[in-house]
Amino acid sequence: MRIKQLELIESGQVLGVVWGGGRSARYHAIWLRDNALDADSLDPGNGQRLISILDLPVEVVIESATVNQRSDLELLMMPEGKHLTFTGSWLWQHRYDVQRQLQAGWVDPRIRLWEGELPPDVPTADFIDISNSRFELGKWLANVRDFGFARLRNIPHAAGAVCDVAELFGFVRETNYGRYFEVRSEVDPVNLAYTGLGLQAHTDNPYRDPVPTLQLLACLENSAQGGDSILVDGFNAVRRLKEQSTRDFELLSRYCARFTFAGADDVSLHATRPMIELGVDGRLQSIRFNNRSVAPITDVPFEQLGGYYRAYRHFAEIITDPSMEVTFKLQAGELFIVDNQRVLHSRKSFSSAGNRLLQGCYADIDGLYSTLRVIEGERSTQ
Amino acid sequence: MRIKQLELIESGQVLGVVWGGGRSARYHAIWLRDNALDADSLDPGNGQRLISILDLPVEVVIESATVNQRSDLELLMMPEGKHLTFTGSWLWQHRYDVQRQLQAGWVDPRIRLWEGELPPDVPTADFIDISNSRFELGKWLANVRDFGFARLRNIPHAAGAVCDVAELFGFVRETNYGRYFEVRSEVDPVNLAYTGLGLQAHTDNPYRDPVPTLQLLACLENSAQGGDSILVDGFNAVRRLKEQSTRDFELLSRYCARFTFAGADDVSLHATRPMIELGVDGRLQSIRFNNRSVAPITDVPFEQLGGYYRAYRHFAEIITDPSMEVTFKLQAGELFIVDNQRVLHSRKSFSSAGNRLLQGCYADIDGLYSTLRVIEGERSTQ
Repeated sequence: MRIKQLELIESGQVLGVVWGGGRSARYHAIWLRDNALDADSLDPGNGQRLISILDLPVEVVIESATVNQRSDLELLMMPEGKHLTFTGSWLWQHRYDVQRQLQAGWVDPRIRLWEGELPPDVPTADFIDISNSRFELGKWLANVRDFGFARLRNIPHAAGAVCDVAELFGFVRETNYGRYFEVRSEVDPVNLAYTGLGLQAHTDNPYRDPVPTLQLLACLENSAQGGDSILVDGFNAVRRLKEQSTRDFELLSRYCARFTFAGADDVSLHATRPMIELGVDGRLQSIRFNNRSVAPITDVPFEQLGGYYRAYRHFAEIITDPSMEVTFKLQAGELFIVDNQRVLHSRKSFSSAGNRLLQGCYADIDGLYSTLRVIEGERSTQ
Repeated sequence: MRIKQLELIESGQVLGVVWGGGRSARYHAIWLRDNALDADSLDPGNGQRLISILDLPVEVVIESATVNQRSDLELLMMPEGKHLTFTGSWLWQHRYDVQRQLQAGWVDPRIRLWEGELPPDVPTADFIDISNSRFELGKWLANVRDFGFARLRNIPHAAGAVCDVAELFGFVRETNYGRYFEVRSEVDPVNLAYTGLGLQAHTDNPYRDPVPTLQLLACLENSAQGGDSILVDGFNAVRRLKEQSTRDFELLSRYCARFTFAGADDVSLHATRPMIELGVDGRLQSIRFNNRSVAPITDVPFEQLGGYYRAYRHFAEIITDPSMEVTFKLQAGELFIVDNQRVLHSRKSFSSAGNRLLQGCYADIDGLYSTLRVIEGERSTQ
């Protein structure tokens, strides 16, 4: 990314940069000064910023801009008389002078939506392989980023092995259900998950704020009839919903639903969040969908409530449409992990004959992404 | 809450309810059916919903509505022929037919904003008391809900005691910094917190998504000169910002900033979120402010970038205004806890003479709220 041309604009308050191939971008002097890369501005050891916005002059201007012999940009900033250097590539990579045409509900271009069958490039990895090879671990974790889920076989037949898997890349998120929890049919269950009932596709713990961002479910035994696991790509469900009705998409992303869990004496969890949550930039951040824990919806204006319920039903119809489902039966020693902000999971009812025992845990997806970036060598956006 | 009058509206698609004192509200038939409280609809044991939206007829109408001898509402719903019962109080408590005039940035009415000095009703509780008395624990936790912070004395002089405090009400959130971490001056620190430098008021880990919602900091030793702790009510800072400039408030809540931490070889954390984050209903959800970890801001359109930087500076000026600060020096055996989505913390620089050792940990605020609700007897919104 060789810089071809520089231009001082607005008396040096803005710099225009032109690269080869007709590429160009403008940068404000204050932005350039704030992002200085020298050792007085960024700690050379840990990369943390040593200055604050209040350390900068209120009016920063570029006195001169030149390209040096190494093809880097050199700036003289006033009133400090400070010299700054940036490579052409760094500037291009961090440009903000771009046309943005983001649709509400956009997703990262790496995300691959799916439905109906297991994407053929989501193989089931082996616990031994991802434990021993950072490369294999990275491949496995990339599935969670791209597809929102991944599968694993050959996990140890031991209580809490599900936590060992989480610790390969991050940290367990402990909750009132324990560091890990057992999913099997119980008498007087605190949660309907602990019965033989079929469960509608759902995300876990929408009554928690923040929600657990990852769920892992490991199978220790599955000789019961039924109990198949079903996964649904919630981001794909949102895409379908919006395609079929922009209005339904807007209603579910515009108003908060409420979720609650108070199934045990010592727990009272509540959250007020939309079923489809977008960032301020319109990014599809997460979905919350769980018929067992939805509480009375009281944040939708009266005039919109009828439409909201139609949208809610529409979304549920898409989510439970068999053409959306990926179905498989976990065998003993197998595990799946889901991005709990994207992928819904459900299970078919199972018989009391035979035994079915899963162990689950929650984990934080920030740790997963961090490990994945380190493995893939994307250590910094600086 | 005695019901005075009932009215079927729109051929029974809507019910009008009038209580004493001129209070009234309307409810949709589909909403009433969905929120049925009987044992076929809600599990009597754990309160979870046994039905899904798809179990309900598309067109639900109220055939008849009467008040029975116990003053409860009785409904006959068609086409199912299902009988529903609601108390007048339940209906009033869950009404959604209300005028909403929420300003962007509104906060829960229980939240009490502060500045300049320690609110006089935030006493320092005693670890022994809150360990032995649920009532005392509830009082202490209520400070976190209302003021965003609380203090504690007499914690055990033991490694990891900070985690024991978190476990009085919830669960530690482990991160790359460990289950707990030591804050003291180090050679080659991975984080500038581990130096004697003063730190600007900040929220922790804005590069994590979700952020840790609570931080606890316990003091084991503090014979160094300086190192005073400073807290700032970030929600109050937002209120000031908006009062002084609606435009600055809008810029910081409308566009994402970026945050990064890659201070150690095995960590690469990034998040793209606004400095002031609002819910879809305009609620002030959280602030992120940390000069050490802010990354190049590239999500603000070129035309807005100059204004964005002025807003960022304005917000920083308010946050560092001494009139906003509560200052105290932690003594050995003392601890403070902050709502990391609301309250910023900082410390003054400290000398290398003497010793200063803090231990910190993160925890999830959903567990704190759950424990607080149980203690206060607010077990359910159902």
